[in-house]
Amino acid sequence: MAPKYKLTYFNLRARGELSRLVLAAGGVPFEDYRIERPAWAELKPNTPMGQMPLLEVDGQVVCQSGAIARYLARETGLGGKSSWEEAQVDMFVCGVDDLITEFCDAFFAPDEATKEERTKALGPYVTKFLGNYEKLSGSEGHLVGSSLTYADLAFFVGMHDVLKHSAGALEKYPKLAKVVESVKDNKGVAAYIAERPESDI
Amino acid sequence: MAPKYKLTYFNLRARGELSRLVLAAGGVPFEDYRIERPAWAELKPNTPMGQMPLLEVDGQVVCQSGAIARYLARETGLGGKSSWEEAQVDMFVCGVDDLITEFCDAFFAPDEATKEERTKALGPYVTKFLGNYEKLSGSEGHLVGSSLTYADLAFFVGMHDVLKHSAGALEKYPKLAKVVESVKDNKGVAAYIAERPESDI
Repeated sequence: MAPKYKLTYFNLRARGELSRLVLAAGGVPFEDYRIERPAWAELKPNTPMGQMPLLEVDGQVVCQSGAIARYLARETGLGGKSSWEEAQVDMFVCGVDDLITEFCDAFFAPDEATKEERTKALGPYVTKFLGNYEKLSGSEGHLVGSSLTYADLAFFVGMHDVLKHSAGALEKYPKLAKVVESVKDNKGVAAYIAERPESDI
Repeated sequence: MAPKYKLTYFNLRARGELSRLVLAAGGVPFEDYRIERPAWAELKPNTPMGQMPLLEVDGQVVCQSGAIARYLARETGLGGKSSWEEAQVDMFVCGVDDLITEFCDAFFAPDEATKEERTKALGPYVTKFLGNYEKLSGSEGHLVGSSLTYADLAFFVGMHDVLKHSAGALEKYPKLAKVVESVKDNKGVAAYIAERPESDI
Protein backbone atom coordinates (compact mmCIF):
# COMPACT_ATOMS: atom_id res chain seq x y z
CA MET A 1 0.00 0.00 0.00
CA ALA A 2 1.31 3.48 -0.82
CA PRO A 3 2.38 5.43 2.29
CA LYS A 4 0.05 8.15 3.57
CA TYR A 5 1.68 11.59 3.76
CA LYS A 6 0.54 14.54 5.86
CA LEU A 7 2.43 17.83 5.82
CA THR A 8 1.60 20.25 8.64
CA TYR A 9 2.65 23.89 8.41
CA PHE A 10 1.33 27.43 8.57
CA ASN A 11 -0.53 28.77 5.54
CA LEU A 12 2.79 30.05 4.22
CA ARG A 13 5.15 29.04 1.44
CA ALA A 14 8.32 29.86 3.46
CA ARG A 15 9.68 26.58 4.91
CA GLY A 16 6.86 24.33 3.70
CA GLU A 17 6.49 25.01 0.01
CA LEU A 18 9.42 22.98 -1.28
CA SER A 19 8.09 19.79 0.30
CA ARG A 20 4.61 20.47 -1.08
CA LEU A 21 6.07 20.94 -4.56
CA VAL A 22 8.15 17.77 -4.33
CA LEU A 23 5.02 15.80 -3.50
CA ALA A 24 3.05 17.55 -6.25
CA ALA A 25 5.76 17.04 -8.89
CA GLY A 26 6.18 13.44 -7.75
CA GLY A 27 2.48 12.87 -8.27
CA VAL A 28 2.06 11.80 -4.66
CA PRO A 29 -1.26 12.60 -2.97
CA PHE A 30 -0.81 14.20 0.46
CA GLU A 31 -2.76 16.00 3.12
CA ASP A 32 -1.73 19.67 2.89
CA TYR A 33 -2.64 20.54 6.47
CA ARG A 34 -2.34 24.31 7.08
CA ILE A 35 -2.85 25.63 10.58
CA GLU A 36 -3.12 29.04 12.24
CA ARG A 37 -1.27 30.24 15.35
CA PRO A 38 -3.83 29.08 17.99
CA ALA A 39 -3.83 25.52 16.63
CA TRP A 40 -0.02 25.60 16.49
CA ALA A 41 0.23 26.72 20.13
CA GLU A 42 -1.78 23.64 21.06
CA LEU A 43 0.18 21.25 18.83
CA LYS A 44 3.70 22.57 19.53
CA PRO A 45 4.42 20.81 22.87
CA ASN A 46 3.72 17.45 21.22
CA THR A 47 6.14 17.92 18.31
CA PRO A 48 9.74 16.60 18.16
CA MET A 49 11.50 19.99 18.27
CA GLY A 50 8.72 22.55 18.77
CA GLN A 51 8.98 23.45 15.09
CA MET A 52 7.08 23.13 11.84
CA PRO A 53 6.87 21.93 9.13
CA LEU A 54 6.08 18.38 10.23
CA LEU A 55 5.83 15.37 7.97
CA GLU A 56 3.81 12.36 9.00
CA VAL A 57 4.35 9.16 7.04
CA ASP A 58 1.88 6.48 8.07
CA GLY A 59 1.75 8.12 11.50
CA GLN A 60 5.53 8.46 12.05
CA VAL A 61 6.70 12.07 12.38
CA VAL A 62 9.79 13.92 11.28
CA CYS A 63 10.52 17.66 11.41
CA GLN A 64 13.07 20.12 9.90
CA SER A 65 12.13 21.44 6.47
CA GLY A 66 15.39 20.40 4.81
CA ALA A 67 15.24 16.83 6.12
CA ILE A 68 11.60 16.54 5.02
CA ALA A 69 12.21 17.86 1.51
CA ARG A 70 15.25 15.61 1.03
CA TYR A 71 13.35 12.56 2.25
CA LEU A 72 10.46 13.26 -0.10
CA ALA A 73 12.86 13.91 -2.99
CA ARG A 74 14.48 10.52 -2.40
CA GLU A 75 11.10 8.81 -2.25
CA THR A 76 9.85 10.47 -5.45
CA GLY A 77 13.09 10.09 -7.43
CA LEU A 78 13.69 13.85 -7.58
CA GLY A 79 16.90 13.88 -5.54
CA GLY A 80 19.50 13.28 -8.23
CA LYS A 81 20.68 10.21 -10.12
CA SER A 82 23.98 9.54 -8.35
CA SER A 83 25.49 10.44 -5.00
CA TRP A 84 27.52 13.25 -6.58
CA GLU A 85 24.46 14.57 -8.42
CA GLU A 86 22.61 14.44 -5.09
CA ALA A 87 25.39 16.58 -3.59
CA GLN A 88 25.05 19.16 -6.36
CA VAL A 89 21.26 19.22 -6.07
CA ASP A 90 21.59 19.55 -2.29
CA MET A 91 24.02 22.47 -2.74
CA PHE A 92 21.50 24.38 -4.88
CA VAL A 93 18.69 23.64 -2.43
CA CYS A 94 20.79 24.88 0.51
CA GLY A 95 21.63 28.06 -1.41
CA VAL A 96 17.92 28.73 -1.96
CA ASP A 97 17.35 28.07 1.72
CA ASP A 98 19.83 30.85 2.48
CA LEU A 99 17.87 33.12 0.13
CA ILE A 100 14.57 32.24 1.81
CA THR A 101 16.17 32.96 5.19
CA GLU A 102 17.03 36.47 3.94
CA PHE A 103 13.42 37.01 2.82
CA CYS A 104 12.00 35.64 6.08
CA ASP A 105 14.41 37.77 8.15
CA ALA A 106 13.18 40.86 6.31
CA PHE A 107 9.50 39.87 6.48
CA PHE A 108 9.60 38.98 10.19
CA ALA A 109 11.92 41.85 11.23
CA PRO A 110 11.37 43.00 14.85
CA ASP A 111 10.71 46.64 13.86
CA GLU A 112 10.07 48.86 10.83
CA ALA A 113 13.60 50.30 10.61
CA THR A 114 15.17 46.82 10.61
CA LYS A 115 12.60 45.65 8.10
CA GLU A 116 13.48 48.52 5.75
CA GLU A 117 17.21 47.92 6.13
CA ARG A 118 16.89 44.16 5.49
CA THR A 119 14.52 44.66 2.55
CA LYS A 120 17.02 47.06 0.98
CA ALA A 121 19.80 44.49 1.36
CA LEU A 122 17.73 41.91 -0.52
CA GLY A 123 18.40 43.55 -3.92
CA PRO A 124 22.19 43.04 -4.00
CA TYR A 125 21.81 39.63 -2.36
CA VAL A 126 19.43 38.46 -5.09
CA THR A 127 21.67 39.82 -7.85
CA LYS A 128 24.68 37.91 -6.54
CA PHE A 129 22.54 34.79 -6.02
CA LEU A 130 21.19 34.87 -9.59
CA GLY A 131 24.65 35.46 -11.05
CA ASN A 132 26.01 32.40 -9.24
CA TYR A 133 23.06 30.17 -10.14
CA GLU A 134 23.09 31.17 -13.83
CA LYS A 135 26.80 30.37 -13.98
CA LEU A 136 26.32 26.99 -12.29
CA SER A 137 23.08 25.95 -13.98
CA GLY A 138 22.75 23.39 -16.74
CA SER A 139 21.36 24.72 -20.02
CA GLU A 140 18.54 22.21 -20.53
CA GLY A 141 16.04 23.88 -18.20
CA HIS A 142 17.46 22.13 -15.15
CA LEU A 143 20.01 23.23 -12.58
CA VAL A 144 21.52 19.74 -12.43
CA GLY A 145 21.44 17.07 -15.13
CA SER A 146 18.81 16.83 -17.82
CA SER A 147 15.63 16.13 -15.87
CA LEU A 148 13.64 17.68 -13.04
CA THR A 149 15.15 17.54 -9.54
CA TYR A 150 14.02 19.27 -6.39
CA ALA A 151 16.82 21.79 -6.95
CA ASP A 152 14.66 23.18 -9.77
CA LEU A 153 11.64 23.16 -7.46
CA ALA A 154 13.61 24.93 -4.72
CA PHE A 155 14.77 27.57 -7.19
CA PHE A 156 11.17 28.06 -8.29
CA VAL A 157 10.11 28.56 -4.66
CA GLY A 158 12.94 31.04 -4.14
CA MET A 159 11.93 33.02 -7.22
CA HIS A 160 8.30 33.49 -6.14
CA ASP A 161 8.88 36.70 -4.23
CA VAL A 162 11.64 37.89 -6.54
CA LEU A 163 9.37 37.65 -9.59
CA LYS A 164 6.42 39.13 -7.69
CA HIS A 165 8.44 42.29 -7.05
CA SER A 166 10.04 42.38 -10.49
CA ALA A 167 8.49 40.26 -13.25
CA GLY A 168 11.54 40.79 -15.50
CA ALA A 169 14.07 39.73 -12.86
CA LEU A 170 15.24 36.73 -14.91
CA GLU A 171 15.62 38.51 -18.27
CA LYS A 172 19.39 38.58 -17.95
CA TYR A 173 19.51 34.94 -16.82
CA PRO A 174 18.32 32.77 -19.72
CA LYS A 175 19.26 29.41 -18.18
CA LEU A 176 17.41 30.24 -14.96
CA ALA A 177 14.36 31.54 -16.84
CA LYS A 178 14.25 28.14 -18.54
CA VAL A 179 14.39 26.36 -15.16
CA VAL A 180 11.31 28.29 -14.02
CA GLU A 181 9.51 27.33 -17.24
CA SER A 182 10.41 23.64 -16.77
CA VAL A 183 8.91 23.68 -13.30
CA LYS A 184 5.75 25.47 -14.45
CA ASP A 185 5.38 22.88 -17.24
CA ASN A 186 5.28 20.03 -14.75
CA LYS A 187 1.67 18.86 -14.62
CA GLY A 188 1.68 18.00 -10.92
CA VAL A 189 3.15 21.38 -10.03
CA ALA A 190 0.71 23.24 -12.30
CA ALA A 191 -2.27 21.45 -10.76
CA TYR A 192 -1.04 22.17 -7.23
CA ILE A 193 -0.37 25.86 -7.93
CA ALA A 194 -3.79 26.35 -9.52
CA GLU A 195 -5.35 25.26 -6.22
CA ARG A 196 -2.97 26.58 -3.56
CA PRO A 197 -4.16 29.25 -1.13
CA GLU A 198 -2.64 32.75 -1.26
CA SER A 199 -0.02 33.60 1.35
CA ASP A 200 2.21 36.59 2.19
CA ILE A 201 5.48 34.72 2.10
CA MET B 1 41.36 4.21 -7.02
CA ALA B 2 39.93 5.83 -3.88
CA PRO B 3 38.73 9.40 -4.50
CA LYS B 4 40.91 12.25 -3.26
CA TYR B 5 39.15 14.60 -0.85
CA LYS B 6 40.12 18.16 0.00
CA LEU B 7 38.10 20.23 2.46
CA THR B 8 38.77 23.97 2.42
CA TYR B 9 37.58 26.17 5.28
CA PHE B 10 38.75 28.67 7.86
CA ASN B 11 40.61 27.37 10.89
CA LEU B 12 37.26 27.09 12.68
CA ARG B 13 35.00 24.24 13.71
CA ALA B 14 31.76 26.17 12.92
CA ARG B 15 30.51 25.02 9.49
CA GLY B 16 33.43 22.76 8.65
CA GLU B 17 33.84 20.46 11.61
CA LEU B 18 31.03 18.03 10.89
CA SER B 19 32.46 17.16 7.48
CA ARG B 20 35.94 16.72 8.96
CA LEU B 21 34.53 14.36 11.60
CA VAL B 22 32.56 12.35 9.02
CA LEU B 23 35.76 11.81 7.06
CA ALA B 24 37.69 10.98 10.23
CA ALA B 25 35.06 8.55 11.54
CA GLY B 26 34.78 7.01 8.10
CA GLY B 27 38.50 6.39 8.07
CA VAL B 28 38.91 8.40 4.88
CA PRO B 29 42.16 10.33 4.42
CA PHE B 30 41.58 13.94 3.35
CA GLU B 31 43.41 17.20 2.97
CA ASP B 32 42.23 19.41 5.85
CA TYR B 33 43.03 22.71 4.17
CA ARG B 34 42.57 25.65 6.57
CA ILE B 35 42.96 29.16 5.26
CA GLU B 36 43.07 32.66 6.71
CA ARG B 37 41.11 35.72 5.53
CA PRO B 38 43.64 37.03 2.95
CA ALA B 39 43.81 33.66 1.17
CA TRP B 40 40.03 33.44 1.28
CA ALA B 41 39.64 36.90 -0.31
CA GLU B 42 41.75 35.66 -3.20
CA LEU B 43 39.94 32.33 -3.55
CA LYS B 44 36.37 33.59 -3.08
CA PRO B 45 35.66 34.89 -6.63
CA ASN B 46 36.52 31.46 -8.04
CA THR B 47 34.15 29.50 -5.79
CA PRO B 48 30.62 28.36 -6.76
CA MET B 49 28.72 30.61 -4.34
CA GLY B 50 31.37 32.79 -2.70
CA GLN B 51 31.14 30.62 0.42
CA MET B 52 33.11 28.05 2.36
CA PRO B 53 33.43 25.23 3.26
CA LEU B 54 34.34 23.74 -0.11
CA LEU B 55 34.75 20.08 -0.87
CA GLU B 56 36.87 18.94 -3.77
CA VAL B 57 36.51 15.34 -4.88
CA ASP B 58 39.07 14.45 -7.53
CA GLY B 59 39.05 18.10 -8.57
CA GLN B 60 35.26 18.59 -8.75
CA VAL B 61 33.93 21.17 -6.29
CA VAL B 62 30.79 21.44 -4.22
CA CYS B 63 29.91 23.98 -1.51
CA GLN B 64 27.31 24.36 1.27
CA SER B 65 28.25 22.71 4.55
CA GLY B 66 25.07 20.64 4.81
CA ALA B 67 25.33 19.28 1.28
CA ILE B 68 29.00 18.41 1.85
CA ALA B 69 28.39 16.61 5.15
CA ARG B 70 25.46 14.65 3.73
CA TYR B 71 27.46 13.62 0.68
CA LEU B 72 30.37 12.44 2.81
CA ALA B 73 27.99 10.61 5.16
CA ARG B 74 26.50 8.75 2.20
CA GLU B 75 29.96 7.86 0.89
CA THR B 76 31.18 6.62 4.27
CA GLY B 77 28.02 4.74 5.24
CA LEU B 78 27.25 7.10 8.14
CA GLY B 79 24.01 8.52 6.73
CA GLY B 80 21.49 5.99 8.03
CA LYS B 81 20.46 2.50 6.98
CA SER B 82 17.16 3.25 5.23
CA SER B 83 15.55 6.29 3.66
CA TRP B 84 13.44 6.87 6.78
CA GLU B 85 16.49 6.50 9.04
CA GLU B 86 18.28 8.99 6.77
CA ALA B 87 15.38 11.41 7.33
CA GLN B 88 15.67 11.05 11.10
CA VAL B 89 19.45 11.46 11.02
CA ASP B 90 19.03 14.50 8.76
CA MET B 91 16.50 15.99 11.21
CA PHE B 92 18.97 15.76 14.09
CA VAL B 93 21.77 17.22 11.97
CA CYS B 94 19.55 20.16 10.92
CA GLY B 95 18.63 20.78 14.55
CA VAL B 96 22.31 20.96 15.49
CA ASP B 97 22.85 23.30 12.56
CA ASP B 98 20.23 25.61 14.08
CA LEU B 99 22.14 25.44 17.39
CA ILE B 100 25.44 26.25 15.67
CA THR B 101 23.76 29.19 13.94
CA GLU B 102 22.79 30.54 17.38
CA PHE B 103 26.38 30.20 18.59
CA CYS B 104 27.80 31.79 15.41
CA ASP B 105 25.27 34.65 15.59
CA ALA B 106 26.41 35.37 19.14
CA PHE B 107 30.12 35.00 18.37
CA PHE B 108 29.99 37.19 15.23
CA ALA B 109 27.53 39.78 16.63
CA PRO B 110 27.98 43.25 15.10
CA ASP B 111 28.51 44.96 18.49
CA GLU B 112 29.11 44.19 22.17
CA ALA B 113 25.53 44.85 23.32
CA THR B 114 24.11 42.47 20.71
CA LYS B 115 26.76 39.91 21.56
CA GLU B 116 25.81 40.04 25.24
CA GLU B 117 22.10 39.77 24.46
CA ARG B 118 22.59 36.80 22.09
CA THR B 119 24.98 35.03 24.44
CA LYS B 120 22.41 35.35 27.25
CA ALA B 121 19.74 33.82 25.01
CA LEU B 122 21.94 30.77 24.38
CA GLY B 123 21.26 29.29 27.83
CA PRO B 124 17.50 28.75 27.45
CA TYR B 125 18.00 27.72 23.82
CA VAL B 126 20.46 25.00 24.79
CA THR B 127 18.21 23.75 27.62
CA LYS B 128 15.27 23.34 25.26
CA PHE B 129 17.52 21.74 22.63
CA LEU B 130 18.93 19.18 25.07
CA GLY B 131 15.47 18.34 26.40
CA ASN B 132 14.22 17.62 22.89
CA TYR B 133 17.27 15.59 21.90
CA GLU B 134 17.26 13.48 25.08
CA LYS B 135 13.59 12.69 24.52
CA LEU B 136 14.18 11.75 20.86
CA SER B 137 17.49 9.92 21.27
CA GLY B 138 17.95 6.17 21.18
CA SER B 139 19.37 4.64 24.37
CA GLU B 140 22.31 2.73 22.88
CA GLY B 141 24.68 5.66 22.64
CA HIS B 142 23.30 6.74 19.28
CA LEU B 143 20.64 9.29 18.36
CA VAL B 144 19.28 7.03 15.61
CA GLY B 145 19.52 3.24 15.40
CA SER B 146 22.20 1.17 17.04
CA SER B 147 25.37 2.31 15.30
CA LEU B 148 27.24 5.53 14.63
CA THR B 149 25.68 8.01 12.18
CA TYR B 150 26.69 11.56 11.40
CA ALA B 151 23.79 12.70 13.61
CA ASP B 152 25.94 11.58 16.56
CA LEU B 153 28.91 13.42 15.08
CA ALA B 154 26.83 16.57 14.55
CA PHE B 155 25.60 16.42 18.14
CA PHE B 156 29.20 16.06 19.32
CA VAL B 157 30.16 19.16 17.30
CA GLY B 158 27.23 21.08 18.75
CA MET B 159 28.22 20.11 22.30
CA HIS B 160 31.81 21.38 22.00
CA ASP B 161 31.05 24.91 23.13
CA VAL B 162 28.28 23.86 25.49
CA LEU B 163 30.62 21.51 27.38
CA LYS B 164 33.46 24.04 27.29
CA HIS B 165 31.29 26.52 29.18
CA SER B 166 29.76 23.94 31.49
CA ALA B 167 31.44 20.53 31.77
CA GLY B 168 28.43 19.07 33.59
CA ALA B 169 25.90 20.24 30.99
CA LEU B 170 24.88 16.67 30.10
CA GLU B 171 24.50 15.33 33.64
CA LYS B 172 20.72 15.46 33.42
CA TYR B 173 20.72 13.88 29.94
CA PRO B 174 22.06 10.33 30.26
CA LYS B 175 21.24 9.23 26.70
CA LEU B 176 22.99 12.26 25.24
CA ALA B 177 26.01 11.82 27.52
CA LYS B 178 26.29 8.31 26.09
CA VAL B 179 26.17 9.66 22.52
CA VAL B 180 29.14 11.92 23.27
CA GLU B 181 31.03 8.95 24.71
CA SER B 182 30.29 6.82 21.63
CA VAL B 183 31.72 9.50 19.38
CA LYS B 184 34.82 9.96 21.55
CA ASP B 185 35.34 6.18 21.46
CA ASN B 186 35.53 6.15 17.67
CA LYS B 187 39.17 5.62 16.77
CA GLY B 188 39.14 7.83 13.68
CA VAL B 189 37.51 10.67 15.60
CA ALA B 190 39.91 10.29 18.54
CA ALA B 191 42.94 10.40 16.23
CA TYR B 192 41.62 13.48 14.42
CA ILE B 193 40.82 15.35 17.64
CA ALA B 194 44.25 14.62 19.10
CA GLU B 195 45.78 16.44 16.12
CA ARG B 196 43.30 19.21 15.33
CA PRO B 197 44.33 22.84 15.74
CA GLU B 198 42.69 24.99 18.42
CA SER B 199 39.98 27.40 17.28
CA ASP B 200 37.61 29.91 18.91
CA ILE B 201 34.42 28.47 17.51
